[in-house]
Amino acid sequence: MRVTVLRLGHRVERDKRVTTHVGLVARAFGASGMVLTTPDEKVVESIRRVVASWGGDFSVKVEPEWRRVIREWRGTKVHLTMYGEHVDERIDEIRAAGRDVLVVVGAEKVPAEVFQLVDYNIAIGHQPHSEVAALAVFLDRLFQGEELHREFKGRLRVVPSPRGKRVVES
Amino acid sequence: MRVTVLRLGHRVERDKRVTTHVGLVARAFGASGMVLTTPDEKVVESIRRVVASWGGDFSVKVEPEWRRVIREWRGTKVHLTMYGEHVDERIDEIRAAGRDVLVVVGAEKVPAEVFQLVDYNIAIGHQPHSEVAALAVFLDRLFQGEELHREFKGRLRVVPSPRGKRVVES
Repeated sequence: MRVTVLRLGHRVERDKRVTTHVGLVARAFGASGMVLTTPDEKVVESIRRVVASWGGDFSVKVEPEWRRVIREWRGTKVHLTMYGEHVDERIDEIRAAGRDVLVVVGAEKVPAEVFQLVDYNIAIGHQPHSEVAALAVFLDRLFQGEELHREFKGRLRVVPSPRGKRVVES
Repeated sequence: MRVTVLRLGHRVERDKRVTTHVGLVARAFGASGMVLTTPDEKVVESIRRVVASWGGDFSVKVEPEWRRVIREWRGTKVHLTMYGEHVDERIDEIRAAGRDVLVVVGAEKVPAEVFQLVDYNIAIGHQPHSEVAALAVFLDRLFQGEELHREFKGRLRVVPSPRGKRVVES
């Protein structure tokens, strides 16, 4: 099962840091790539730099035709929104289907159409919080925590430590 | 067990959105309050507006003396960092202690001193990603997913829906 994250409604400058967090979370929590609908070189570069140093084959693409990305997706389409069904009610079904998953993550306003184009509108709780957190918890539930033990085989690697920072370079 | 989040190194303007996400995640994932070390009215206001509409008794305070906040904390002190010990190795111990938890969440650079002042340096995986995601997953593990089913009894409440947005006001 491969997962791609579609980031909708990114506003250049204003959302630069949050969208970078979305991309880094997608990678660190086991997704294979991110599609940005607004070109933003700074964001793309930040994420690619992390991939270059820390490993994995995470891809970042820009595709302004987001409707097409959703419509043509072969697999399960999930939109994360606080208005949707609770993740705990649907996550087993989504995982069991075993199909590739497109996770749609919006910025502030998401077109109403998105709610109709996907298979599932899923809430990580029904309180307002953050698309970064929603994505992390969704992927953590989908991969049942195993994603946080995956090896990335990059040039840089952390040696876990109770105090201080240890990084080895290979 | 009550949890407070200490947000270190917030830079006004640059980190406005990410720090707001940290605060909203803290609240939505069951923490009781956030302490900001840099005064930023916009951030404080955004979070208070959410509390006013959506409920709960989440508090936001500004306290520039962060060393004192850490030193004087009566309970368990956890710093979230990709360099620390894996969350899955320590979370049961932290939960079992049953003490109030201070979760320290940094922005880009965290003073080396912080690693020494806390009881645990905990990594949500050892890849670079996001303090917003790290906080969400840490709290989700600490509260074992129950936090996402908590009722906030606010003026606004989402009625979960497979399609579209339903919010009731009381």
